[in-house]
Amino acid sequence: MTIKSDIEIARAATMKPIAEVAARVGIPADAIVPYGNTKAKVSFKHIDSLKDGKDGKLILVTAISPTPAGEGKTTTTVGLGDGLNRIGKKAMMCLREPSLGPCFGVKGGAAGGGYAQVVPMEDINLHFTGDFHAITSAHNLLSALIDNHIYWGNSLGFDTRRIAWKRVLDMNDRALREIVNSLGGVANGFPRTDGFDITVASEVMAILCLSLDLKDLERRLGNIIVGYTRDKTPIRARELKADGAMTVLLKDALMPNLVQTLENNPVFIHGGPFANIAHGCNSVLATKSALKIADYVVTEAGFGADLGAEKFFDIKCRKAGLKPDAAVVVATVRALKMHGGVAKDNLKTENVLAVNKGCENLKRHLENMAKFGVPIAVAINRFVTDTDAEMQEVMKAAESLGARAFVCTHWADGGAGTEALARHIVELADGGRSAFKPLYPDDMTLRDKVKTIATEIYRASDIACDASVETAFKDLEAGGFGKLPVCMAKTQYSFSTDPNKRGAPEGHIVPVRELRLSAGAEFVVVVTGEIMTMPGLPRVPAADSIRLNADGQIEGLF
Amino acid sequence: MTIKSDIEIARAATMKPIAEVAARVGIPADAIVPYGNTKAKVSFKHIDSLKDGKDGKLILVTAISPTPAGEGKTTTTVGLGDGLNRIGKKAMMCLREPSLGPCFGVKGGAAGGGYAQVVPMEDINLHFTGDFHAITSAHNLLSALIDNHIYWGNSLGFDTRRIAWKRVLDMNDRALREIVNSLGGVANGFPRTDGFDITVASEVMAILCLSLDLKDLERRLGNIIVGYTRDKTPIRARELKADGAMTVLLKDALMPNLVQTLENNPVFIHGGPFANIAHGCNSVLATKSALKIADYVVTEAGFGADLGAEKFFDIKCRKAGLKPDAAVVVATVRALKMHGGVAKDNLKTENVLAVNKGCENLKRHLENMAKFGVPIAVAINRFVTDTDAEMQEVMKAAESLGARAFVCTHWADGGAGTEALARHIVELADGGRSAFKPLYPDDMTLRDKVKTIATEIYRASDIACDASVETAFKDLEAGGFGKLPVCMAKTQYSFSTDPNKRGAPEGHIVPVRELRLSAGAEFVVVVTGEIMTMPGLPRVPAADSIRLNADGQIEGLF
Repeated sequence: MTIKSDIEIARAATMKPIAEVAARVGIPADAIVPYGNTKAKVSFKHIDSLKDGKDGKLILVTAISPTPAGEGKTTTTVGLGDGLNRIGKKAMMCLREPSLGPCFGVKGGAAGGGYAQVVPMEDINLHFTGDFHAITSAHNLLSALIDNHIYWGNSLGFDTRRIAWKRVLDMNDRALREIVNSLGGVANGFPRTDGFDITVASEVMAILCLSLDLKDLERRLGNIIVGYTRDKTPIRARELKADGAMTVLLKDALMPNLVQTLENNPVFIHGGPFANIAHGCNSVLATKSALKIADYVVTEAGFGADLGAEKFFDIKCRKAGLKPDAAVVVATVRALKMHGGVAKDNLKTENVLAVNKGCENLKRHLENMAKFGVPIAVAINRFVTDTDAEMQEVMKAAESLGARAFVCTHWADGGAGTEALARHIVELADGGRSAFKPLYPDDMTLRDKVKTIATEIYRASDIACDASVETAFKDLEAGGFGKLPVCMAKTQYSFSTDPNKRGAPEGHIVPVRELRLSAGAEFVVVVTGEIMTMPGLPRVPAADSIRLNADGQIEGLF
Repeated sequence: MTIKSDIEIARAATMKPIAEVAARVGIPADAIVPYGNTKAKVSFKHIDSLKDGKDGKLILVTAISPTPAGEGKTTTTVGLGDGLNRIGKKAMMCLREPSLGPCFGVKGGAAGGGYAQVVPMEDINLHFTGDFHAITSAHNLLSALIDNHIYWGNSLGFDTRRIAWKRVLDMNDRALREIVNSLGGVANGFPRTDGFDITVASEVMAILCLSLDLKDLERRLGNIIVGYTRDKTPIRARELKADGAMTVLLKDALMPNLVQTLENNPVFIHGGPFANIAHGCNSVLATKSALKIADYVVTEAGFGADLGAEKFFDIKCRKAGLKPDAAVVVATVRALKMHGGVAKDNLKTENVLAVNKGCENLKRHLENMAKFGVPIAVAINRFVTDTDAEMQEVMKAAESLGARAFVCTHWADGGAGTEALARHIVELADGGRSAFKPLYPDDMTLRDKVKTIATEIYRASDIACDASVETAFKDLEAGGFGKLPVCMAKTQYSFSTDPNKRGAPEGHIVPVRELRLSAGAEFVVVVTGEIMTMPGLPRVPAADSIRLNADGQIEGLF
């Protein structure tokens, strides 16, 4: 048997016209804005018309701490959604949009895998409906307005050493990380240090994903702090009159994008904020709309549960008033073996002991999730090399914490491979067992919020802040930002800040290096390690082999 | 009577579904790729299916030398197309795509005016179908691949002082004109001077507009010269293996965009290259496709006829094998008065003498056009202040050179205002009177090509080249680029290189400052003055007042 590649499977799929996919969940033809025949946006008018309807059940798919072995969170989200549809439920999925730039670095694609994919995958991974391009434009318009303001007299009094707004491109381009701009003389402005981030790292992306509607989007854009005066007074985007034009650039991008799975079930793919300097979830508008449209909505959050689920609960759900009904933690036997100390090259050999040891990571995440009051199940995303004994070990670990684990074969079987999990999730979600609450109250100080996450979720003994960070905490409280949630930027590979500490480390110290205020997105980013906001390309970039073949199909992208 | 603004007229328009507009000219539903309900791309499959069909007649709309009074070339192109449809002809228009960045500088919009507009004008002026974003991405991927190549060892031997490929953004951002990139240490590369152009100035834009199909696009992209080694050997994009991935990024952008006029007639708006460092015409693919679809195709070229028409004939028509059947030179009484020496504030007063004097400019353009063998008519784009005596003066001037002039009131009346012109154009185009030939043969040396244009079209007595330019001419001939057409970059305001010399100056010298090879677009840019490839924003940018109103409509853009 030859195993088909993701792209071969995707190409063999029979997509339905997107209007038909939409109609099946009650979205009428005049409510969709088509982008080609298999992608569409859903109009604000339609979304507004849904607002008094009943909400469906919200299910989060999260994962153990990621390893190079892979977990398959998106794939499981798609598989579970297809499974729910297969057992007769009206279910939708809400995913994040992939970024264009990284496609040219390492072969990739982020639309699921195997028989649990979202299509058209090439379009989704390239320009899609142009959302990221709109974000790039809106972000860079603000950047241009800053330097233009300084050029024409700087009446707001920008301290050019304290400009807090870089430029962005959706490209892996290390040469732009740090630049000096405005060179070349009087006509080009005042030279200053500057730099580019990748578009997904833009605060505009986080704002788009958290905005409730166009008004809220405009308000948040206006609140962005773009820099400071010499006496450290913040200057907002609103003072540059940038918020209106940025909103105009983003008005289409704010509409959720509708696509379909290989099994023709509806999926919103909308927004893709970083999971470190932002909250790493798809847009609030897509999730809220899906809850009005479908009875069950399956969504995912970036990285492992310590980062992704925590931010999903403490930032997205808190701010958008969402109440998740169940959560799934995805694990693979292979990844658990790595957490149990096995090297990547030895993952094909049965090793029950290593699985048992690696399950400490899974159990830690399960314990953590319970703190949010949401009922949990475990999805074992099965690989062909997994043995029964290994899978039994995972089930035992889950059961020891009162959760059930299900072997899921959606990669090979599509929705048929997650039926058992789907039935269980329906039971959990319908059972009214969820007593969702965020981990910390709004009123807690920022420093205590960080400490609470560090001790309760990361199981650290304490946080460590040097004098400048302590001052930053105080300044933010004094500036009126104390009630914001915190957005942790920590390595995803460990509960600790050391990426090499797999499993379930505890008693460590979490050093807080820096605080960054996202006044428009309305959270405070807490940096605990190196944060890369502009990737580079590898020695042999994927771009080298990306091309159109004789049939006009894209080769080399996946 | 209150005069409605362009945007008021556009909003009051009843757009037809784009599939209906397409169907009327025989484009079937499965041949269009919708972007919303009023914009679409036409599939390559459909375009290929047309290739053995008969070509319609090609009509160029060009203009006298522009003045601050305005001429209305796009408006006349739209009006004439509507007029041709009104008199029962199957006609299409081919226009250039407007650029996003400048919309935030000065209130603008480039989709015609009054009752001769193309809609949806907001979309067309903002993200439209994403073509410019795709060009930005493809251009910047190549930029990133250059620095990445150097970072990983520079095996091709780039001389970092001789990198000939900047970066681009579709934004007016003077701070990016000149930068130093790759700062910040070892991980970020080797610092070098760099800069950004606006996207429309990208050679990728010119290439997209001149490509015959995806294969030709890929070939041209591969030919781009991105830099030189220390011994001045050119390095091409193909050597960086960038051509395949760039083609993938541009595959949708290469499909022509279909929209409609206020009178629901079909229009291709596709491609928008600079009219100085590029050839300033819409895409070859759109024009060729339109010729297969319609019996009459009306298209425009940038700036006045000395630049726009010359490049249309000598670059676009020559390279794409197009044979224009007729041309229209647009003039306004107001602009002719300015050419006749009247200041902008005094244009409302009748001044027949000034019109007579200004007609020297019109007559010069008419004489020039005759050199290309194409029959000509004049469109007087009427303003309310124009008097009969003034218009008579223009008609006399046209008749003195054997051309007929028509008063056109499309701005106020739509297609009904150009019926007489339309009938005459049909007569000219159907009369088989066109004996089109480019101004110079491929075989002429580059220097002689420039001199021919300067003397024959600009009526200069000679060109002046300093030693470095003479060397550049020789190097290009030696490098095998001698057969390329030249692409003149000259002020549009005068036949001479002095923008203040209105009317019909002659006997001047055209100083050639610099030659720039566009090896992918396949022309040599001849720079005769200051060329601005990255605009700045004004003191009070239009962005300040652009916003969504309570009805979700865009205010401040026009």
